[in-house]
Amino acid sequence: MLLPELKVRRDKIRILMAQQGIDAALITCNVNLIYTYGRVVSGYLYLPLNAPARLFIKRPNNIEGEHIHPIRKPEQLPDLIKECGLPAPARLMLEGDELPFTEYSRLAACFPETEVIPCGTSLIRRARSIKTNLEIEMLRRSGAAHTKAYEQIPSVYQSGMTDRQLSIEIERLMRLEGCLGIFRVFGQSMEIFMGSLLAGDNAAVPSPYDFALGGEGLDPSLPGGVNGTLLQAGQSLMVDMGGNFYGYMGDMSRVFSIGKLPEKAYAAHQTCLEIQEAIVQQAKPGTVCEDLYNLAIDRVTKAGFADYFMGVGQKAKFIGHGIGLEINEMPVLAPRMKQELEPGMVFALEPKIVLPGVGPVGIENSWAVTAEGLEKLTLCSEEIVEL
Amino acid sequence: MLLPELKVRRDKIRILMAQQGIDAALITCNVNLIYTYGRVVSGYLYLPLNAPARLFIKRPNNIEGEHIHPIRKPEQLPDLIKECGLPAPARLMLEGDELPFTEYSRLAACFPETEVIPCGTSLIRRARSIKTNLEIEMLRRSGAAHTKAYEQIPSVYQSGMTDRQLSIEIERLMRLEGCLGIFRVFGQSMEIFMGSLLAGDNAAVPSPYDFALGGEGLDPSLPGGVNGTLLQAGQSLMVDMGGNFYGYMGDMSRVFSIGKLPEKAYAAHQTCLEIQEAIVQQAKPGTVCEDLYNLAIDRVTKAGFADYFMGVGQKAKFIGHGIGLEINEMPVLAPRMKQELEPGMVFALEPKIVLPGVGPVGIENSWAVTAEGLEKLTLCSEEIVEL
Repeated sequence: MLLPELKVRRDKIRILMAQQGIDAALITCNVNLIYTYGRVVSGYLYLPLNAPARLFIKRPNNIEGEHIHPIRKPEQLPDLIKECGLPAPARLMLEGDELPFTEYSRLAACFPETEVIPCGTSLIRRARSIKTNLEIEMLRRSGAAHTKAYEQIPSVYQSGMTDRQLSIEIERLMRLEGCLGIFRVFGQSMEIFMGSLLAGDNAAVPSPYDFALGGEGLDPSLPGGVNGTLLQAGQSLMVDMGGNFYGYMGDMSRVFSIGKLPEKAYAAHQTCLEIQEAIVQQAKPGTVCEDLYNLAIDRVTKAGFADYFMGVGQKAKFIGHGIGLEINEMPVLAPRMKQELEPGMVFALEPKIVLPGVGPVGIENSWAVTAEGLEKLTLCSEEIVEL
Repeated sequence: MLLPELKVRRDKIRILMAQQGIDAALITCNVNLIYTYGRVVSGYLYLPLNAPARLFIKRPNNIEGEHIHPIRKPEQLPDLIKECGLPAPARLMLEGDELPFTEYSRLAACFPETEVIPCGTSLIRRARSIKTNLEIEMLRRSGAAHTKAYEQIPSVYQSGMTDRQLSIEIERLMRLEGCLGIFRVFGQSMEIFMGSLLAGDNAAVPSPYDFALGGEGLDPSLPGGVNGTLLQAGQSLMVDMGGNFYGYMGDMSRVFSIGKLPEKAYAAHQTCLEIQEAIVQQAKPGTVCEDLYNLAIDRVTKAGFADYFMGVGQKAKFIGHGIGLEINEMPVLAPRMKQELEPGMVFALEPKIVLPGVGPVGIENSWAVTAEGLEKLTLCSEEIVEL
């Protein structure tokens, strides 16, 4: 990645560091290394407030360049920083919400004279929540590739398939279009393979994970998503795969039906499209996130589908979430979220309804906040497609 | 999962806790919940030394039963433990190598009167390193399904494919045979999709990850594995997919060739098979892990392939690793590892050689340590298969 782009990103972090009196950051978690160095390495990016960043690298052993130094273990960091002609940090931030306790403690112990604070994760996530122009372009391309895969879904469906079999063919389509496969999510307890396909009543099964919908899963070791449901006439199914095409996790859900669905399913789907449209009309820089959530609840209540909105029994407490290098970034469109939209934010908006006896309906697209409003990044037909 | 199996597992942990004067464990990381409760939940398994375990659960909201209590936030734990009639813990262990620093700190702060220690991860990993009979059976079945997928590889190869295209078809085969897809690995910096396929000189490209071999990858955000290499005559390729079929990560690598390979490739492959055979002859309960590593180095040096063993330029410093719920469990067959093999350990053994201008050769199988020696769990032809 070109240095000017990396410099923009690092300076976004530095501005927030300066506000909190932090004079250096030590960055070692993969997504934050991708953000600040442009690729995954095993090592540490040391980001001083007032000097160029230094990369201290363990692996791979074939990366060299200005401001890049080999390292074997973190205990060498203070001496290496000194050798670079940099002062010891006074107030150093580490990635406290991502680094395991023992690794954090080991790093902190390397700097006995320094005030070490754990706000690195939240601060960098704040910086990452406002995308650069290049990042928005990556998400735009991710959305285009995602769309290309989804458009082929009808061609891989065969009568008599289970949800699992159809999911496998869609995963293959995603991979053939360039999806890297790996699903990056913030929070060590969040696990999912490439995404989910939920058919019929499996969409109403609660899961341990904080995704929009659940599903039983195929094994108690991964209780989410497909469960072997035979796809049958009168069922709806929702495809919600993660679109990691260029390191950026686009998000898009589309609904398919086996034959025709009951009328109420089309009405519920239309309600979700109307909620999406109402939010798109209202959302612009300055809009408060919880207002968009409340708008959705208001609309779905008036339409009579509130009991089935965002799940049945166990419901997701959000209708949208930031996306980027991870699938769950800031902002979150949820109750009590006072955060205001800003240009450069990118989020997925996913009003969904689960109808017992039918399955899931609704929509999910990825949106970028512009100066005027929202730009849709996932351009794919939004009606229920009959398989 | 049946309670007697869970009781066996919990008691294995309790024995180690007692040795260290620990009277309770709080378990909340997914793999350890699978191990001690049989499935992933969002919540906490509280494991006292001298009383039955309690599950405090946030999600899903449809799990009920004896010793299961709903919880909203960890701050409720002390009161809930008291309500169960249990004493407050004196010395409580948390999963210090897995829990993020801030989450660990929050949990520890819930128990101000308690000595909280971070050894939970290492202690539970030690317990998990000796598999129960049921776990070995799971890994045996995983190996059988893995084999079934690999046997179909020649049928999905087409002339003119890239490594990426072939990998996608193999991923599909794995999924169709039941692979859950998700690749569980210990250590937050270790990332990989379903496994790797390395063809030709891409096998020699160093990566940031601590897997046996590297590969350039398709994107700097995931620099490992396939890189778009066109499969051509005279190249070898190694398929090393993770076999997560029942929550258990089996491990197996096999080598294929496009047309015939140079003679030295077959010689190098044969050397790896001989190393495997020599280790299988020597390994039994009581064998020291580093001795097996040294045996491999000795053999490969005598055969003249030492410079190409376990990579070129950047080399892996192990020839085998424990497997189970994660791909990298204990024991590790590496220098300075004084640990002795014990019945019930299961590990992958992977002597591999990378030949510049040709590609990777060698072998990987999963093995269970029995009272007499080793049982092979991945039964699949070991010769180089010409595509």
